[in-house]
Amino acid sequence: MTIVYIAIACGLIAVLYGLVTSQQVLRAPAGNQKMQDIAAAIQEGAKAYLVRQYTAIAVVGVVVAAVLFFTLGALSTAAFVLGAVLSGLAGFAGMHISVRANVRTAEAARGSLQGGLTLAFRSGAITGMLVAGLGLLSIALIFWYLVDVAGNAPNGDEIIKALTALAFGASLISIFARLGGGIFTKAADVGADLVGKVEAGIPEDDPRNPAVIADNVGDNVGDCAGMAADLFETYVVTIGLTMVSIALLVAGTSEQLLALMALPLIVGGVCILTSIIGTYMVRLGSGQSIMGALYKGFWTTAILAIPAIWFASQYTLGDLNAPIGDQAFTGMDLFWCMMIGLGVTGLLVWITEYYTGTQYRPVRSIAKASETGHGTNVIQGLAISLESTAMPTIVIVVAVIASFQLAGIIGVAFAATSLLALAGMVVALDAYGPVTDNAGGIAEMAGLPDDVRTRTDALDAVGNTTKAVTKGYAIGSAALAALVLFGAYTEDLTRYFPDIVVDFSLSNPFVIVGLLLGALLPYLFGAFGMTAVGRAAGAVVEDVRAQFRDNPGIMAGTSRPAYGRTVDIVTKAAIKEMIVPSLLPVLSPIVLYFVILAVDSQANAFAAVGAMLLGVIVSGLFVAISMTSGGGAWDNAKKYIEDGNHGGKGSEAHKAAVTGDTVGDPYKDTAGPAVNPMIKITNIVALLLLAALAAG
Amino acid sequence: MTIVYIAIACGLIAVLYGLVTSQQVLRAPAGNQKMQDIAAAIQEGAKAYLVRQYTAIAVVGVVVAAVLFFTLGALSTAAFVLGAVLSGLAGFAGMHISVRANVRTAEAARGSLQGGLTLAFRSGAITGMLVAGLGLLSIALIFWYLVDVAGNAPNGDEIIKALTALAFGASLISIFARLGGGIFTKAADVGADLVGKVEAGIPEDDPRNPAVIADNVGDNVGDCAGMAADLFETYVVTIGLTMVSIALLVAGTSEQLLALMALPLIVGGVCILTSIIGTYMVRLGSGQSIMGALYKGFWTTAILAIPAIWFASQYTLGDLNAPIGDQAFTGMDLFWCMMIGLGVTGLLVWITEYYTGTQYRPVRSIAKASETGHGTNVIQGLAISLESTAMPTIVIVVAVIASFQLAGIIGVAFAATSLLALAGMVVALDAYGPVTDNAGGIAEMAGLPDDVRTRTDALDAVGNTTKAVTKGYAIGSAALAALVLFGAYTEDLTRYFPDIVVDFSLSNPFVIVGLLLGALLPYLFGAFGMTAVGRAAGAVVEDVRAQFRDNPGIMAGTSRPAYGRTVDIVTKAAIKEMIVPSLLPVLSPIVLYFVILAVDSQANAFAAVGAMLLGVIVSGLFVAISMTSGGGAWDNAKKYIEDGNHGGKGSEAHKAAVTGDTVGDPYKDTAGPAVNPMIKITNIVALLLLAALAAG
Repeated sequence: MTIVYIAIACGLIAVLYGLVTSQQVLRAPAGNQKMQDIAAAIQEGAKAYLVRQYTAIAVVGVVVAAVLFFTLGALSTAAFVLGAVLSGLAGFAGMHISVRANVRTAEAARGSLQGGLTLAFRSGAITGMLVAGLGLLSIALIFWYLVDVAGNAPNGDEIIKALTALAFGASLISIFARLGGGIFTKAADVGADLVGKVEAGIPEDDPRNPAVIADNVGDNVGDCAGMAADLFETYVVTIGLTMVSIALLVAGTSEQLLALMALPLIVGGVCILTSIIGTYMVRLGSGQSIMGALYKGFWTTAILAIPAIWFASQYTLGDLNAPIGDQAFTGMDLFWCMMIGLGVTGLLVWITEYYTGTQYRPVRSIAKASETGHGTNVIQGLAISLESTAMPTIVIVVAVIASFQLAGIIGVAFAATSLLALAGMVVALDAYGPVTDNAGGIAEMAGLPDDVRTRTDALDAVGNTTKAVTKGYAIGSAALAALVLFGAYTEDLTRYFPDIVVDFSLSNPFVIVGLLLGALLPYLFGAFGMTAVGRAAGAVVEDVRAQFRDNPGIMAGTSRPAYGRTVDIVTKAAIKEMIVPSLLPVLSPIVLYFVILAVDSQANAFAAVGAMLLGVIVSGLFVAISMTSGGGAWDNAKKYIEDGNHGGKGSEAHKAAVTGDTVGDPYKDTAGPAVNPMIKITNIVALLLLAALAAG
Repeated sequence: MTIVYIAIACGLIAVLYGLVTSQQVLRAPAGNQKMQDIAAAIQEGAKAYLVRQYTAIAVVGVVVAAVLFFTLGALSTAAFVLGAVLSGLAGFAGMHISVRANVRTAEAARGSLQGGLTLAFRSGAITGMLVAGLGLLSIALIFWYLVDVAGNAPNGDEIIKALTALAFGASLISIFARLGGGIFTKAADVGADLVGKVEAGIPEDDPRNPAVIADNVGDNVGDCAGMAADLFETYVVTIGLTMVSIALLVAGTSEQLLALMALPLIVGGVCILTSIIGTYMVRLGSGQSIMGALYKGFWTTAILAIPAIWFASQYTLGDLNAPIGDQAFTGMDLFWCMMIGLGVTGLLVWITEYYTGTQYRPVRSIAKASETGHGTNVIQGLAISLESTAMPTIVIVVAVIASFQLAGIIGVAFAATSLLALAGMVVALDAYGPVTDNAGGIAEMAGLPDDVRTRTDALDAVGNTTKAVTKGYAIGSAALAALVLFGAYTEDLTRYFPDIVVDFSLSNPFVIVGLLLGALLPYLFGAFGMTAVGRAAGAVVEDVRAQFRDNPGIMAGTSRPAYGRTVDIVTKAAIKEMIVPSLLPVLSPIVLYFVILAVDSQANAFAAVGAMLLGVIVSGLFVAISMTSGGGAWDNAKKYIEDGNHGGKGSEAHKAAVTGDTVGDPYKDTAGPAVNPMIKITNIVALLLLAALAAG
């Protein structure tokens, strides 16, 4: 249990880091009255949205909790509620600090680029550490309570059920938060751009645009709160399900099992420590490269993680060269699997930067294609979207083969665990983005000098890459975890239904049916997300047009637009639009099970549901990567042109690039990232379905 | 053998229909000198392109034939060459008639809408009947020769190898033809539009545009010749592999086997007859609905196919209620499976029309989204693309389950066979499109009266839907055939490698690896296709700009542009760009096999390759449907606006819709349709790999 205590301590340190750094950030000067007024409007809008979003989710959550209570009992329900509440809390806390750091970053950027960078990154790091810290704490505390206090065996049914339910709670919240936040942010963004930049011909973030506050609110509730809830979910599912897999697959003494199950926890713990050290390394060098500064933090974290994981493994497992329990692999094999996970993280970061950075072929090819018009910009962007799936897939495939050869499914699970262990740092890089985006908006609206806006723009430009990185990372972990989740599903089947022989062979047509229907889910879900953004953005356009029409003083600059009205419209639209698509992955496995049960056997119903779990990742991986990388590339192609290439701002190429950017918006910030929690939900619902059927 | 003779007779009737109807079409008046000059330029360009394309393919073909000769022997090589030559011939003949029917359709449309419709449709029907007729003849003749002349058992190794090699020949040509033709047609189309409509502000098909002849050539070499080669391939693979599956899976007396293997042939035969009857039903009713007229032909064919298939089955199998060979199913079960295939065809046609017709929600939603700009048009178009995959998937899934419940994999194969049996009529509907498209171009360039152009436009508008129908149909058949092809793969494995136990379970990580890499292929292939179009279109733009600059007389209308120069540039670009992507599916299964063999066992190498075959269909189905339906919807949304909605021609909404149309072009005519032959190639290469490994 000492190891679990260390993990808990690391989780507490992360939370403590969050609290202390929050104080630092909040103590920084918040600028002049005008800046504070704007920030206050963003704060108010973001808080109002999140309160209403969580209220709406709570309704679904209570229904699901009631179902869980009557099928799986009180313990699972409690774990579900804990996962849900902490996922919500991670998002809320991230938003809370982000809407206060934005104005302070703008103020700090008045002084220097380093000042702005430090403030924005610290604020991101708070969110990052809270995500990793709360995630680790939730799993470790449940494990500690059930094993140490309640006296269950480490691989007892109660633990499996509780960890699965915890993951379910986190996932359920996160799909709503990702999708609702994603719809909000992109509806406001697209709507503001269409009616502002395109129709009225006013610049981005012009205070005369009534949708400008909604746009800034969106950055916080979508890119920050939604992302934080998503990564919290990914963290909990990956580490929790690694422990569940160990419980299901490994036989050994209670002591051996306890050590092996605690290993993911302590690995998560020590990586929180290396992440915290990494955050202090984010400093501009002589080249003033912002990406370079962020990379210093990331690489410090990743490189320190190597010895940290080695010592943690050594400490936890004892002799690294002895086989573990009844398994053929040793602690050293697991260590190498975790190194594979770190390698995958590094490669995914590099690949994402290649596909979304302005200095490489993909973004430049889109910028060049913009010269011949809107159509060729979009064609090239779509081509890059499709292409960008290749390298990550090959990296994941190699990682799966290598870690499986080392230590079977448990090896794959540990590769996924070490990948996720860096979540604190990765989330920090991502959460930095919306803060700088907002800071730029505030600088513009408050009429700060041009050099401030230049600095915030420079800070913001790398945000497109760091945001794309997290999404590729999350979906990459989902692909690695797919085999683990499927393994848990098959083990659950043998445990709960020992008499049923399920044929998971590709020759079974029900497997094909499951694969096809699973593959359909990301497409249908993407369609819903894209349509929702289009529809909600249309509502924004109409409201802004009405405001311009009814109050000519707005465009003249003599009267203030009704910002709150637009925020309110987007809020209602986003909440309405998020419900149905979010229920799609929750209900699909259940519906498929009962339909196949009705037309064929229970064994084939289980086979179809199992295949659906893999179908959803086999297609979801590609849908998500193509959308998130493609969207990032479109956005940066626009920025590359704005930097003076291909005619610069205002040229025909720029107009075409704005179209590509608009198309990429819902791709990269609504539909694409929500695929990750969608995949998890489908998998976890299937696991819970098995438990419920066995209990019922 | 009588049944095979009947099938051969039906094939000959189809070819005869083609020859006789060609005479009718060619006897129709070809218009004035100016029209004939334009048509001659198109004929020349199309012929020159196809000759060069086939020459380039021949180089690859000879290499592949040599490899086949040394690994699988003379018979397989001969069958491969036959499949390749006939696939090429089907494409060439289709192009040959299409480039002569275009000008005659324009001339006939001077008289009446019915006149134009009859001529264009007859010309399409020639291509359709040649595709089905040559396809049927090639399979039936090989079967007849090997069984009746050479005296092999109907399920002998020689027959399996020969039919597989025949399918490979057809597929190899068709992927090059689909992709090369697709790149040609869209590079010319996009290039012409960009530089003509967008830059120079001249209308589509304006004779001053140097790319206008290339654009019209493209319709013939891509939408006609490429499509014909593709459908020939689909026909041969589906019917041929149904026979192979019977040979592999069914045990019974030689007589029973012969009858069962001949059944797909006679079903193909009688459906050619009902297709020919259907072609005579294409007549405008009192409502002057062109789609209605085409539907009359289609539904006549489909409805007559029901009793025709029943009588054919009854005649071939004798007592329909007796079990067949050692199987649990009866002839009646197979009849119902074939009815399922017909039902799938009808539903796919209906769904495609829903997603691409101007009178339904999807197209109208894109048209409406065009009001708010280029970006929202593309967003809504992508949303519709994604959504359009749902209903076809569900139809296919239900068909797979139902036909499998009736008669196992053989049942699924027969469902695919009856689906493909209607190919003559479906291709006729499709090949009608490029003829009317060209006719409109010729009318415009020759300065015919406006009412002629109005009539050809009306004829052309439904072409977008019929073209989308064929593509959905082809990919739908691929999904149905997937299980059959995989079945053939596993049976081949047991036959050639009886000692190797391959684990195709989803728990095997090599299966996951195969699924992921298979799923990647359509994405990578799509990326290549889209990029190729962009690059080749760029070359067109530069050439046209240079022509305008060097010869101001062109825009003044006093001198003739160098049409041939542009055709030449597109020709070179298309041929250069088609090679690498086409080799991707040929080489992937082979590379995967040897890589996995190197790192793990032969059993897992086979498992990974098998999973790749399913991965490619699981993701390819969605990529192809989303691209072809989405592209059709974008095109028709533009047409809907041009009909006077949302501001009509020249409005901002129209400009946005033109962007969507441009994006949809390579989606629906290059990348999307080429996915179908790509899937087949991957599967057949895997089958040949097994045969080669067993022989080697």
